[in-house]
Order: sequence, then structure tokens, then C-alpha cells
Amino acid sequence: MRCNVVAVGTELLLGQIVDTNSSYIGEQLAAIGIASHLQLKVGDNLERIVDACATALQDADAIIMCGGLGPTHDDLTREAIASLMGVDLVHDDEIARVIEEMFAMRQRRMAANNLRQALVPRGASVIPQTRGTAPGLICPVGNKVIYAVPGVPHEMHDMLARAILPDLLQRSGASAVIASRVLRTWGESESALNERLDDVISELDAVGNPTLAFLASGWEGIKVRLTAKSDTSETAHQLLDTWEQRVRGEINDIVFGVDADTMESVVLDLLRTHGWTLGVAESVTGGLIGGRITNVAGSSEVFRGGVISYASDIKFDVLGVEHGPVVSERAAMQMAQGARRVTGADVGLAVTGVAGPDEQDGQRVGTLCIGVALPDGTSHATTSVLPGLRDQMRQFSVITALDFLRRHLLTL
Amino acid sequence: MRCNVVAVGTELLLGQIVDTNSSYIGEQLAAIGIASHLQLKVGDNLERIVDACATALQDADAIIMCGGLGPTHDDLTREAIASLMGVDLVHDDEIARVIEEMFAMRQRRMAANNLRQALVPRGASVIPQTRGTAPGLICPVGNKVIYAVPGVPHEMHDMLARAILPDLLQRSGASAVIASRVLRTWGESESALNERLDDVISELDAVGNPTLAFLASGWEGIKVRLTAKSDTSETAHQLLDTWEQRVRGEINDIVFGVDADTMESVVLDLLRTHGWTLGVAESVTGGLIGGRITNVAGSSEVFRGGVISYASDIKFDVLGVEHGPVVSERAAMQMAQGARRVTGADVGLAVTGVAGPDEQDGQRVGTLCIGVALPDGTSHATTSVLPGLRDQMRQFSVITALDFLRRHLLTL
Repeated sequence: MRCNVVAVGTELLLGQIVDTNSSYIGEQLAAIGIASHLQLKVGDNLERIVDACATALQDADAIIMCGGLGPTHDDLTREAIASLMGVDLVHDDEIARVIEEMFAMRQRRMAANNLRQALVPRGASVIPQTRGTAPGLICPVGNKVIYAVPGVPHEMHDMLARAILPDLLQRSGASAVIASRVLRTWGESESALNERLDDVISELDAVGNPTLAFLASGWEGIKVRLTAKSDTSETAHQLLDTWEQRVRGEINDIVFGVDADTMESVVLDLLRTHGWTLGVAESVTGGLIGGRITNVAGSSEVFRGGVISYASDIKFDVLGVEHGPVVSERAAMQMAQGARRVTGADVGLAVTGVAGPDEQDGQRVGTLCIGVALPDGTSHATTSVLPGLRDQMRQFSVITALDFLRRHLLTL
Repeated sequence: MRCNVVAVGTELLLGQIVDTNSSYIGEQLAAIGIASHLQLKVGDNLERIVDACATALQDADAIIMCGGLGPTHDDLTREAIASLMGVDLVHDDEIARVIEEMFAMRQRRMAANNLRQALVPRGASVIPQTRGTAPGLICPVGNKVIYAVPGVPHEMHDMLARAILPDLLQRSGASAVIASRVLRTWGESESALNERLDDVISELDAVGNPTLAFLASGWEGIKVRLTAKSDTSETAHQLLDTWEQRVRGEINDIVFGVDADTMESVVLDLLRTHGWTLGVAESVTGGLIGGRITNVAGSSEVFRGGVISYASDIKFDVLGVEHGPVVSERAAMQMAQGARRVTGADVGLAVTGVAGPDEQDGQRVGTLCIGVALPDGTSHATTSVLPGLRDQMRQFSVITALDFLRRHLLTL
């Protein structure tokens, strides 16, 4: 089974928008074992859209068209499909009714051309709207099929999961439910992770279901994604449970969360469990740790605030660090104690380091000292040397520091 | 003149990497008036690469191939081009010498297959390497041309500017030098900007050179880019100077910088000019302002640090804010004074607001109060209501606050 992708829109060719849709579709297709050999971008020109689709359909069983379903005269996906199917466009009363209702609800006047979105190639079936006004389409062309979805990412994601992937699976004769689970990891390179999961990957290759993929996410760590196909949602999730345990058996020490978890949400949850509050003292990161923690809604229950001690004398005068080298484990621990005291928090987290371009206190660029101060009065510190240019080193510092705190909280 | 794009790499189809290269190329081509009607992604398979290139070349004068120039067996761009040209691959001594030197310099062993990168389709000319080991190629095919560049973005950008765009311009019979200038703006929507520049755009449309484009960059504001073509670099820059003045005549009040300037670099430069240091007090942004300022290398000369006063009692106890509503201009000004005092800085900048999901102090989600405290002891404040969900509102807060400070510094 092969499925190619055609993204429609002149703005894509002009680079005004990056086409992330076809990457997303490619990833989703791969997860269910469907090959995608060609992905095209084409502008809002009927003849060229038809040509591009014919090319994409030539060596494939299906294509997914993304975009060009809007109401304006340069939205030509419906016309292109009708031309490829050799049929005319017919007005769909049900779609028109939904569009009219939507405008009425928002108390906005509906322009006449909005009813263009109620046109459907004769013989096509409709994928009901998500939240926008454009429905998707499933259009048979001989023994092949053209799917059409809006270019708005969240509408496309929804229709892909709800209608297209199941339809593709059914056509391929495979089972109809897909479920996936992501294990979030921090602390290993992709190649090291690959090595540690070598046996699991071989076993999975042999059974073929679920599939396992690594998604390198830069300073967010590496995601390990399991995708299972099955007849029912229940058996798909059983498969995921079984293999999650098998994967965790090899790499549980570096798994910090599942699915929508982030390092900061996990740390906040652990603190909440203990009933503890957090204060930070940031030098090299200049506020990024606080910035990231406070991006989690509800963080105010746990996070009190902190001190950005960029200049050394703020470390000494505000945080009470003793004079001496400020990029050191000693300074990091005293900063963490200072953060607890100044913010009145139970737990203090502090970072001091060298982001470059020049070294500092005889420490090389990339050096990061992390300090943690706990409610029992103890302090702990560690030193890492992180890679990357200024921005990258600082972002790595944030997640490395949060992970150090997480590991301490887990032992308490 | 038409130039299509073929991005090569199975990882692109699988969605492991988003193809940003063809968007970048499309944008650059549009800036010099060359049309791009079709952009394709194809995997590492010789037959399919050849087919994709033939398709892309069919209605175009040129194609740019991106990727597949590495040393491994699945890097097939050279072979595909040789097949399309109907020639064999020949070993280029000069390329081989450069590759061998590069490995020697890094004191690394060179694998034999690295010399695959010294193979060149007979009749092609070479675009010398940027910093990697892969050279680019200019390959005539009848009266058309195939360009090949590495998929590594910075190498591709360099070869495009240095060799491909000038070659395309020459082939199109146009003048040979392109230069561009970006005016960074903050404070207007794209449609408002468009309206204010209506006359300038009409004049530019009439003369055709330079071209003007808007690049919406979310919470970085909107960039107005002028791109000029000319015979010499000098006359191109004269054109840019003239039209920059013309554009500034209409929108100078919202231009905060040029080319590589950022809001934070501009604010730091202004403070440096006055010989002043900066301290911040952040509530709703939780550290993002400090995080962004300290991403500028050399910011430590100007930025002393700050207080993340997320919990209200840190505003009262550490910053000395009087008890009362904390999302208010009064609180913002007192926070800014507190930031000056705690950090020992000349200038204080403070933000307090409501990122949601719930309102606070009777203020609706999106409310932002900004306070500035200046060396003369005066304080100033303003209130905005910003759009967007939590993350977006907070990022808008950062640039809005920095812009408020910038406008005050400009009057001093």
C-alpha cells in the first residue's frame, strides 16, 4: 500500500508558510506501515494541481491532498479532483446547512462564495467538518482513492486520525484501530538509545506490531514512540502496555514521562505530591528555567519565583553566596539555599555556568553547575559539560537542571 | 524563468525532518522574480529520484536539488544527475584534495567512501564547498540546468546566495547582484502595515525593483524586506538606501531595527550608549524577559539580573510593592523600582499580568501592565490587552515590555 501527498497552495511555494503538513502525514503513514514515496507542493493553478495529482497517483494506491478547500476562487482542490475523477461537482445540502448554521451561531454574515465549500465531486463521500467550515473528501478514482483535507493543521490532524488512516488500513486489509504511546527520555544520545534497545527492536521487527520509532527532539530529549494496530482499542492498548514494559525494562532510568508529559510538568507534579513549593536562582540561564516552569498552567500553586543573579554581586549580596569562584558546585548549592530563603520556598534549584563565547573562572564554555536545596536542609550539586552554541547550551542547561531535581525528588 | 525544487531524503518523507529547505529556496527565488511551480520530496531511491527530477524539469528551465550529496551508499543525487545528463561520473582531483585536507586538519581518519563526494557528472561544474565536505554542482541538461546543493541548511543558504541565484539571474538575462534589507517592525498587524505602505507598494510595483515583502514572524513582529537587483553591489545598496528612507517615511514609528537586530539587542545597545545597567522584575513572564536578554552575547555588561516575583508576597516582601491589586500599573511601577534597588541597576523593567486560564484581580486574561523605572527616579507604566493562549500571551508580553522600555530610552 502506497500513499503520496500533494500540498496545495502558492504560499507554500513562495516560502511564506513551511509545509509541515506533509511531514506530519508522512510520519503518521509510516507509523501504520504505509509507504509514501513522493510528496509534492503545487500552487493554486487548476492545470498544475491536476498534473501534480496525476503524477503523485501514478505509482501509488492513494494520495492525500492538503489545502485548497477554502471558499475563495483560488481554492481549487474540489475542481481538480472532479477533473481527475471525470465527474461534475454537486451541491451537498447537508454541508450547506452546517456552514450556514456555523455563520448564524457566530452572528456573522455568510458570503455567497462560502457555499463553494458545499460542492462535492459526484461519487465522493464526505468527512464531516472538524471545527472549520471545510469538510474533507474521500474520492474513488478507479481502484485508487484521493483524500482531501483542509490545510489548517488541527483540522487535518483530526480528519487524518478520524477518517483517513482507518480507511487506508481497511483498504490495505489491515486491522482498523491504531493507538500510540510516547516515552519521553532524557540523558542518552539517539545512537546509545538505539544500542540499548537493540534486542527489543529485533523482537519488534520480528512480530511487526507495534512499531517503534525514535523522534529526536533536540533539547526536549528523544521520544520513543510505540504504535500498535489492532481490531479493538482495548487490544491495541494491551499491546502498548506490554511493550511499554518491555522498553522500560531496558531504559527506565532515562524515561521521565509519557505522552503529553514535559520535564517541567513532571517536576511540578512531583513537588505537588510532596506538598512542596519551588524557588529558583538562575545565572547562566538568565530566567529560562522560571520561564519554562511558568508556562505550565497551574504552576503558581507550586512555583513561588526566583532570583536572576546574572551579575556576581547579586549572587553574593542577594543570595548570600560566599565570595569565591561563581561557576562552582559550592556556589550552586549556596545559590539554591539562597533561592529557598529569598522566595520562602521548600525546595531551591540553582544553575551557574558558562554559555560563552568566553570561558569564565577558568571553566570552559559549556560548563554547568547545578545545585538543589531540599526541605531537610541538605544541598546537592553536580557539574556537566554541555555541547552547543550559546542558545543551545542554555536550553540544555534548563532541562538538565530540571532532570537533576527530578531525580532527587524521586528518592524522597 | 522557472525553477522547481527537488528535496532528496527518505527522512523527509517519513516526517523525521521537516523540509524547510525548499521553502527557503522558494522565498529566495520569489525575491528575485523567478517562479517556482512545483516542489517535490523524494526518498533515497535512484529510479524515483530520476523520475522526480524529470517531472520537475518538464515545465521549468532549472531545478535545484537539495540533499543526497553525502558520502554514503544512499546518497544518490550525483548518480541521478549523471543519468539525467546521460553521462558518467568522473573523479575530481581538486575536490578529493580538499576533502582529504579537511580530514587531516581535524585529525580524523577518512573512510574510503568519503571520496564518493569527489565524483562529478562529466560536464558539470563545481560549486566549491562551504564548510562541509560536499561541493555543490551546476549541471547543464540540454538548454536547462540542474543545480545540486547539500541538505545542511547553512551550506545550502551559502551556495544558493554565492553561486545559484547569480547563475539563474545571468541565465534569465537579468542583472547579477542581489541585495536585501530587512526592517524589523513591532506594533501593527500585517493588514494595517499593508495599508500604511499602500502608496509605496504601488510605486514599487510600477518600477519593479526593489521588491517588497512582508514576513510575519509571530511574536517577533513583522519584517518588511526590500530586495534589490542591480549590476553592482554599490548601486543595489543605493537602491536599498533610497527605498528604506521611503518606507521609513511611512512607518518609521514602528521600525525598531534593521537586518540582524532583535528587540533585545536594540534595547541593550541603547542602554550601553547611556552607560546604564538593567534589572528586571517579572511576574507573568516568569523569567522569559531575562532569558531572552541574556541570550545576547555580551549582555552581562548591561544586564545585572532580576527577581521572578511569581507569588504575590515576593512582590511585597522582596520588591517592596505596597499591598493591593498586583495586576495594576501601580504595582508594575513599584516592581520596576524594586528591581532597580534589589539588583543595583540604573534602569528597572517590570511586568505583571494575567496569562490565564483564569482571570486575576478582576483583570481579564491577556492583561499586561508594564512598569519602567529610570535613573532620574521617575516611573512610568502602561497597560495592554494581548491576544493568544498562555504561551503566546507571555511571549507577546516580553517583546511588548522591551518595546515600551525602548521607546522611553529613545526620548532620553
